[in-house]
Amino acid sequence: MLHACGALPIMADAPEEAAEITANAAALTINLGTLNPARAAAMLKAGQEANRHGIPVVLDPVGAGATAFRRETAAALLQSVRFSAVRGNASEIRYLAGAHAVCSGADVSAEDALETLQTSCTIAKQLAEKTGAVIMMTGEVDLVTDGNTAYTVKNGHPLMSRITGSGCMLSAMTAAYHAVRPEQPLDACLTVLCANGLAGETAAERMTAQDGNASFRRYLTDAVFNMTEQQLEEGARYEIFR
Amino acid sequence: MLHACGALPIMADAPEEAAEITANAAALTINLGTLNPARAAAMLKAGQEANRHGIPVVLDPVGAGATAFRRETAAALLQSVRFSAVRGNASEIRYLAGAHAVCSGADVSAEDALETLQTSCTIAKQLAEKTGAVIMMTGEVDLVTDGNTAYTVKNGHPLMSRITGSGCMLSAMTAAYHAVRPEQPLDACLTVLCANGLAGETAAERMTAQDGNASFRRYLTDAVFNMTEQQLEEGARYEIFR
Amino acid sequence: MLHACGALPIMADAPEEAAEITANAAALTINLGTLNPARAAAMLKAGQEANRHGIPVVLDPVGAGATAFRRETAAALLQSVRFSAVRGNASEIRYLAGAHAVCSGADVSAEDALETLQTSCTIAKQLAEKTGAVIMMTGEVDLVTDGNTAYTVKNGHPLMSRITGSGCMLSAMTAAYHAVRPEQPLDACLTVLCANGLAGETAAERMTAQDGNASFRRYLTDAVFNMTEQQLEEGARYEIFR
Repeated sequence: MLHACGALPIMADAPEEAAEITANAAALTINLGTLNPARAAAMLKAGQEANRHGIPVVLDPVGAGATAFRRETAAALLQSVRFSAVRGNASEIRYLAGAHAVCSGADVSAEDALETLQTSCTIAKQLAEKTGAVIMMTGEVDLVTDGNTAYTVKNGHPLMSRITGSGCMLSAMTAAYHAVRPEQPLDACLTVLCANGLAGETAAERMTAQDGNASFRRYLTDAVFNMTEQQLEEGARYEIFR
Repeated sequence: MLHACGALPIMADAPEEAAEITANAAALTINLGTLNPARAAAMLKAGQEANRHGIPVVLDPVGAGATAFRRETAAALLQSVRFSAVRGNASEIRYLAGAHAVCSGADVSAEDALETLQTSCTIAKQLAEKTGAVIMMTGEVDLVTDGNTAYTVKNGHPLMSRITGSGCMLSAMTAAYHAVRPEQPLDACLTVLCANGLAGETAAERMTAQDGNASFRRYLTDAVFNMTEQQLEEGARYEIFR
Repeated sequence: MLHACGALPIMADAPEEAAEITANAAALTINLGTLNPARAAAMLKAGQEANRHGIPVVLDPVGAGATAFRRETAAALLQSVRFSAVRGNASEIRYLAGAHAVCSGADVSAEDALETLQTSCTIAKQLAEKTGAVIMMTGEVDLVTDGNTAYTVKNGHPLMSRITGSGCMLSAMTAAYHAVRPEQPLDACLTVLCANGLAGETAAERMTAQDGNASFRRYLTDAVFNMTEQQLEEGARYEIFR
């Protein structure tokens, strides 16, 4: 997905080198999925190094509230690293904001999904103020806010929840978008949400009767690869949310 | 593949959180592939937690006899965790049953493949009795037994042995099937063997002259995604083995 | 990709078993991507075990010069293990040869890409003499040398640089080719470079307007799966480089 949008990815998860790799990067994504103690240490070092160099950092708090280990790691990261953006589902964002959340894994709980958009927005704005990051709460309708302005994004397709790593890929793309627009983080987040959702719609249009979620995954990446500015401008469906 | 069959997967391999993640899961797969000491500890903790909560546990003993480290880990797991099902190839199941086996890696040895079905069945039944688990021995013809009843399944396609992780995906699917039918483990195992094999047949029918194993892999997942009850009932090829 | 070319892959990265797994293998690939201390230890043990058994070993020095940790690991490996082949991009090979190199990650730096072919060849020959390995320096034009003879390979397609792991897959395939031709390492390296590059060309021909890098990745593996001797003989584009 990063190659699809023109970025050059490198993965490094050892505390021995994560900071050094980060110093040469244009952006950093920290993803809590498949957490272990060495990775947690690497995340802290990489995040702090990125801050020292003014490199944008995106947090994907996968299953943030699901275990004590993830709760502690997320708390340590938010305390020690300044994030440009945090991208999670409703359960993850609610947990980080300190709101009641039901987290049992990587997916949003039915209870949290029922949350009204207005309450979601209040919670996301609280987290934005608390962290200084742009908050992206993704779901059927995506919400993005820097604490002042909030947008909803209606691009997307239900099949995006039937593939592994769709949230992780979006978070990584968010970092790539921040790399090219580091001074306008809200703009970068809004753009990547529209682009990713629109790619989901384009991918869904290619689906045949025999195609399933594996084909959809391929079409999604292909759609990001082929996306043009014109296509994005015509297809983006977002509005200011008050 | 788990998303294809309607499940919601999460991977957690750190001893710090594997048990806590498991407590909220509907089923657990323990897979010995890419083993390391931290993962071995996490497997034990997760398996025991699953047992405490009555959550079905499936073991995929990848290359079980191939190294001392895998032999010891497999022995520790079988001693401390009650498995609902164990899915392996002939070499792996033979090794766990204590029969002579030639294990050099993740693939079945030529010697073990020549094993007659009758001997395989005796060995599988022994392992079922020893462990209390349903045993699935997969190969050209699959064999499944709870120690009393045994079935052979003839669904499948040779291309399934030309993709990485086909056994691992089947084991993970087996856990998903146990999640929805925890009281009928033999039935769940028989069903998933037929469904997976039938998906292989459906996938093979889509292959064009230019397609290779990468396309086959995509078609296989797509076929699981699109499988209907009617298709499974009409296409399943199994019989009781005496 | 290894299944595509008829090999049977197994991954093992724990020092507890890497040597034992290697002893039963026909070839070994050591890949520095996503390095950590346990993996570095496993690489050393596996490489030394392979040497003891006369099993060919291929090194992929991913980002070799990018961090102190990778520099130290690469140095330790080159000191303790005899490699049959080393496959890297211009930056990685330059670094290992002791030439000035700008390494910031997994990709070749713009500065190193401007290197003339003649200088590249001199550097690659130096590294071949220093290590006793066949050196494969891949890029727009690939260069391969055993220190005496050098070939350039012009097969390939620009899309190969737009997918993740194309270099890693080539290195793994190189090990498979060495497994069947252990006595002719230069020949094996030249053949796999032509085969892989030709597969890239075949894959590019399948691309439709909607296809992107995800489709290309699938087509590339498919092309290796379907490659015939005749196709390779007719399509290979290599020449001796003086």
